[in-house]
Formats: sequence, C-alpha cells, structure tokens
Amino acid sequence: MPDSMFEPQNPDFEADIRASFARQGLMCHLGIEIVDVLPGAVTLQVPFSQSLTQQHGYFHGGVMGAIGDSAAGYAGLTLTPPGSEVVSVEYKINFTTPGAGERIIAKGTVKRAGRTLIVTNADLFVEKAGTQSLCATIQQTIMVLSANETRPAG
Amino acid sequence: MPDSMFEPQNPDFEADIRASFARQGLMCHLGIEIVDVLPGAVTLQVPFSQSLTQQHGYFHGGVMGAIGDSAAGYAGLTLTPPGSEVVSVEYKINFTTPGAGERIIAKGTVKRAGRTLIVTNADLFVEKAGTQSLCATIQQTIMVLSANETRPAG
Amino acid sequence: MPDSMFEPQNPDFEADIRASFARQGLMCHLGIEIVDVLPGAVTLQVPFSQSLTQQHGYFHGGVMGAIGDSAAGYAGLTLTPPGSEVVSVEYKINFTTPGAGERIIAKGTVKRAGRTLIVTNADLFVEKAGTQSLCATIQQTIMVLSANETRPAG
Amino acid sequence: MPDSMFEPQNPDFEADIRASFARQGLMCHLGIEIVDVLPGAVTLQVPFSQSLTQQHGYFHGGVMGAIGDSAAGYAGLTLTPPGSEVVSVEYKINFTTPGAGERIIAKGTVKRAGRTLIVTNADLFVEKAGTQSLCATIQQTIMVLSANETRPAG
Repeated sequence: MPDSMFEPQNPDFEADIRASFARQGLMCHLGIEIVDVLPGAVTLQVPFSQSLTQQHGYFHGGVMGAIGDSAAGYAGLTLTPPGSEVVSVEYKINFTTPGAGERIIAKGTVKRAGRTLIVTNADLFVEKAGTQSLCATIQQTIMVLSANETRPAG
Repeated sequence: MPDSMFEPQNPDFEADIRASFARQGLMCHLGIEIVDVLPGAVTLQVPFSQSLTQQHGYFHGGVMGAIGDSAAGYAGLTLTPPGSEVVSVEYKINFTTPGAGERIIAKGTVKRAGRTLIVTNADLFVEKAGTQSLCATIQQTIMVLSANETRPAG
Repeated sequence: MPDSMFEPQNPDFEADIRASFARQGLMCHLGIEIVDVLPGAVTLQVPFSQSLTQQHGYFHGGVMGAIGDSAAGYAGLTLTPPGSEVVSVEYKINFTTPGAGERIIAKGTVKRAGRTLIVTNADLFVEKAGTQSLCATIQQTIMVLSANETRPAG
Repeated sequence: MPDSMFEPQNPDFEADIRASFARQGLMCHLGIEIVDVLPGAVTLQVPFSQSLTQQHGYFHGGVMGAIGDSAAGYAGLTLTPPGSEVVSVEYKINFTTPGAGERIIAKGTVKRAGRTLIVTNADLFVEKAGTQSLCATIQQTIMVLSANETRPAG
C-alpha cells in the first residue's frame, strides 16, 4: 500500500509532477496521459495508435520502455524533497507478452527510497476487450538531484 | 569486426530488415532512420525535434530506449536464418550523460549469437557541434522465432 | 498468493528441487539452505560467516547474487513439466542496503510463466537482531529445457 | 585501450585494490585470484573446484556473478580519488554458455567514469583445454563514496 508506506516530503508533489510531465514533448507526441499520482505510485496510460506500432501492428516495445520508465521515475519523484529532480540511472525491462490491445497502462511504484538513489518498479498491462495482461515489467534505479544541484532547464 | 566475425545465413538480411523497419509505425513517428545494416551490426540515428524531449528540452530517455532496443534487435536479426523473426526478451539500459545535441546515433552489435537466444549490445552517442558523447549503453537478450513459429502479421 | 495462482504440472516438484539443490556444490560451500518450496515461490537462507564477507565484514554482494539467482530460478522450476530443467538466461540485481546482519533470506517468486521463458523476482532481506531489511532485489529470466532437451548430468 | 584512455587519480590504486581484495573473505573462500590491475581494467580468475558447482558439475552461475561483479567493481575503483570506496548499485548478467572448464577468467573494464556513478562491463570466459569461450557478460553501475563518506570497517 504505497499510500500508507510512504510519506511525501513535498506537499506539492502532484502539481510538480504534472508540470514536469507537461514539459516533456515526448509524452504528448506519444499520447501518454497521467492516470493518477499517489505517494510512491504513479500510473500512466497510452491509447493505441498506428504511430506506436512495431512490424505486426502491435504496440512497439519502445513505447513500453518510454511509458514504463516514466511511470517508475515519477513514482520516485513523489517522495523527494521540494525542488528536487530525478534522473534515470538505468532500467531493465522484460517483455512478457505482445502488446496487442487498445491501450497500455503502466503502474510505477517505489521499491526502496534512499536519500541519493531510489529503486522502483513498473508493471505494464495491455488491455484488450476489457482484459488486462502483463506485457512488460521494469526494475529501475533513479538518482535524486537536490534543488541546488539541478541545472537550469535549457 | 562484425563483418569478419559473423557470417549471415540469410543472403537478403539487409532487404528484410529494411522492410521490417518500414512497417514499424513508431520508427517513422519518432523520425528514426537506418544508417547502415551490416552482418552483426546495425546503426540507426534520430535527429532532434521538440517532439522527442524531456522536461529540460533534451532527448528523452524513452527515445534512447526505443532507438537502442531497435538497433540491437536488428543487429541480431542480421544473423538469423531466412524467414526468422526476433523478439526482445529484455534489455537493460544505462544512461551516462544527458541527451543534449542535434542527433542520437545508436550502434547495435551482436555479442553472442546462439540458436535460440542472441545477446546484443548498443552504444548510443549524442552529437553536439560535431562531437559525439556516449549517452547510453544497452545489454539486450533477443529470442529467435523460426519461420514456422512466426505469427501472421495481423 | 503463489499457492492459489500457480498450479504445478509436476507433482514431485518439491522433491525434484531438493534433489537438484543437493547436487549443487556451491550451495553447500556457501552454507545456503532451503527454507521452503511452494508452487511459484522458493525461499532460501544463508547464515553469516567470515567466509562470506566483503572488505567491511558484511555479507558480500556475490553471496546475495548467488542466493537470489538460485531462489528465483528454483521458484520457476516449481512450475515446469516433469523432467524439465531451467537455466538462468540473465538476471539483474539492485543492492539497496549493506548486508550487515546474522543471515540473509531470499524469497524467489514467479512473475510470469511462459512455456519457454519464465520471468521471476527475488527479494533479499538481511536480518539483524530480529529485524529484516530489504538488501537486494532481482529481476530474472529463465529458460525451460524440456525433458528431452536436457543433457545428462555429468 | 584502458591504459591510454584512463588516467588514475590515485597513484596507489593497485596496492589499495590488492589490500581491499585481501580483506574480502568470500574471494578467498571461492578461490578467486587477481590476475592483473590496470587503469580502468581488472582481471580476476578462479580455478575449478567441486565446491563451485551447479547440479551438472559445471561452474555455478553464482560464482560467475561473484567474480564478474568484483572484476567490474574493482575496475571502477582504479579510477577514483585516493581514499574513495565504491559500492555496487546494481549489475545485470547474461549467461551465454555453460561454465564447463578448468577456470573462469573475468575481465572487468570501465565504460564511463562519472564523478558519482561509474558504468562498467565484465566479460567472463571459461577455459577448457586451452580454449576460452565467453560464458557471461555483465553491465554494472557503481557509486563512488569519497574518503569522508566511507564508513569505518566494522
């Protein structure tokens, strides 16, 4: 239960994450949307489009990587001090079933939040005719940059 | 030296890869292009665009994952028998420097080609004012589906 | 709940896993023991010893990798047909806190069982004065070798 | 060429690494030995013994993880300032062929050295009757702890 386990340090975490998300050109270009932002847990979704396909007309693995990495990274950002940013150090993604369906939902969660490094996970589900199947799973490391370490955007 | 180390089994590997690539809606949507296709080595590139950015206006990590996974996977596909396909089992990506520049070049190479599983790598370079810097590195596993295992595209 | 989610295909899965474990010289050499073997979930433990240390006298990360890889792989083996074996294709381990304590417990679980490939996880806990802390977490891919593919032991 | 690419900051890097290695109980218990320590590159080896086996009598994957993680981590430590330590953040290992042979050689190299994080690789070779075959490959992240961050051993 992320809500009870994790106590956010930044009271404006949700607004800050929505603002950061809105500045990412790629999220808009792929049609990725925020479903919800909770302490230690961020869920994103992306509806199917021909622009997102691999050679068989299913969701491309590149879309899964992009949405999963983002969901997991933003889950980490819910728990950092005000003014912080996070950067992905690395992630690892396993693909478990083809992405054949109408949308993908990516549920990012925090596994362990250290002061400098946060370990997160994301489970990705492809939805087809109302049924959700696990299509990918991610284990990720992010690094926290404190307010005075972050570079000016630009 | 991929050219000398690896002997392709499919004489049409380059044409088959270009045809597969052309069917991937995501590659076109992101502006990813083929640079070259050699035995055991495929290089892709993507020019910068506002559609590909993270919150600071640099290349988004999701773009790096998509181009790197594709370069590495297609490198594997250069070595499989005619009619085969490959699917990504998993990959792991480390981000080493922000993607600030005019384009990203992804060089996929085969590390070891087994009959069923192929281990590949990709190194990603961001180019800025003529200088290339390593921005990400990938270690990937792909699975070979023989001609009679592959599903009809549909 | 692994017990309800997973239906073993091999009625002798526990005996087969205990027999396989007993043949692994490394498990004995490191002092790793089986805690329990359930459908889709295997727990192992290892008591502290000076033979298992890194330079500060804590459990070495190499011990965590060995016990975690084994717990996750055997969790996968609980779900395969009689006579099968599994081999680790790859795993990824994050270290989350130093291994300072009296023993490590590794809980391997199956994330998704395909016919050829199984994705598993393991969470590792270090126990100190009765308190358990997550010290590492693993995401693993294993491949199933059917009874007629397995090589004679030897 | 690690020798020319990397300029060590610590003139005593080799002696410091040999001293750290000697304090690791696990290295001795597994019979792992240093082959050489160069700037950005550390090679370790381990001779075969029944204590290091999996169920078929080959080298256990746990041995490969332990020697590879150590070779890669120490490669990183060759490049850090005097008094620093490194800790493994995470690593990912692919197994490419069974470890059937008389010894394993692990060649750790630095991929990119940042101030806080270092990305490394290790290639592992099993030697049988004079022939070396790649048996595993690692991509690793380590974190540098500066002299005043490191904890007293104990």
